[in-house]
Amino acid sequence: MSILKETKLSSKNIYKGNFLDVRKDEVKLPDGNKSTREWINHPGAACIVPILPTGKVALIRQFRYPVNREMIELPAGKLDLGENPEECALRELEEEIGYSAKNLSFLALIHPAIGFTNEKMHIYLARDLIKTKTHLDTDEFLILEPTSLKNAMQMVWNGTITDVKTIIGLHWANRILSK
Amino acid sequence: MSILKETKLSSKNIYKGNFLDVRKDEVKLPDGNKSTREWINHPGAACIVPILPTGKVALIRQFRYPVNREMIELPAGKLDLGENPEECALRELEEEIGYSAKNLSFLALIHPAIGFTNEKMHIYLARDLIKTKTHLDTDEFLILEPTSLKNAMQMVWNGTITDVKTIIGLHWANRILSK
Repeated sequence: MSILKETKLSSKNIYKGNFLDVRKDEVKLPDGNKSTREWINHPGAACIVPILPTGKVALIRQFRYPVNREMIELPAGKLDLGENPEECALRELEEEIGYSAKNLSFLALIHPAIGFTNEKMHIYLARDLIKTKTHLDTDEFLILEPTSLKNAMQMVWNGTITDVKTIIGLHWANRILSK
Repeated sequence: MSILKETKLSSKNIYKGNFLDVRKDEVKLPDGNKSTREWINHPGAACIVPILPTGKVALIRQFRYPVNREMIELPAGKLDLGENPEECALRELEEEIGYSAKNLSFLALIHPAIGFTNEKMHIYLARDLIKTKTHLDTDEFLILEPTSLKNAMQMVWNGTITDVKTIIGLHWANRILSK
């Protein structure tokens, strides 16, 4: 039994939108006092490091409304209901950049924002890609930017890439592929 | 002008709690259609890689309610109103582990969750530490776990450490300190 554990006393659904599911829970702290915890319930996500037939990494450029700017990212998306992370990774790979993968290997599980969400993101390396066709959501727009792994790592170290899943996915790919 | 840009048409405050500030905006998409974007307004945060006088990294163990488990992390916290990231880093360093730093250097800016928050996190390396005294918030409990950088990196690669700020801060410290 953890001496740090916070125990749920009650849970309230504050807001359930098309996208965000906001909760407010009353908790018992390790010292017996009470506090509240506000958090976002998230279905989990998958992120893919796709290695194109040319050997380049399939980075994408997307406008991200919350940060009000274009970001350079790896393909990724939220798990659909009943979907497992591998299925999600393969679906997002095809939807966003139009490739299927004959070879998908797990790299890492990460927690992006433990202060306010239960989101878990599963990162995969996708190799032996075969060109199919993209199927973007109607409100999704992106540009494919194939980049050598060496250049992508430079963009991590010089601050061009600031998205956490992309930084961590590239560190993993670099560890495995530059062996 | 970005061909990917989404333009704000209107913005609504959905929920403002003690901790979370939830917004719902109507936006114009690049193709002229409309959509909505739900997001969390965040003040920004600072994270510190503290190098203790022993040479070890000051990792901490905390129970994180949204993920319902203990996490191994670097010290970090949200910016107070009017505070700049360096001030926040030094304050959190003292509050959480009880050290002041004579040497604070910027490592990286990261975006933890661009799908649903504007949070920016500034990561610093803190060296030449001097023991002072912790000042934890009344609802904050943690255990200091000094760890060699080598062991910490093993915990990144073997999946023990899954918190993104911690993974990325350790990659930076490893790049700089193992030179």
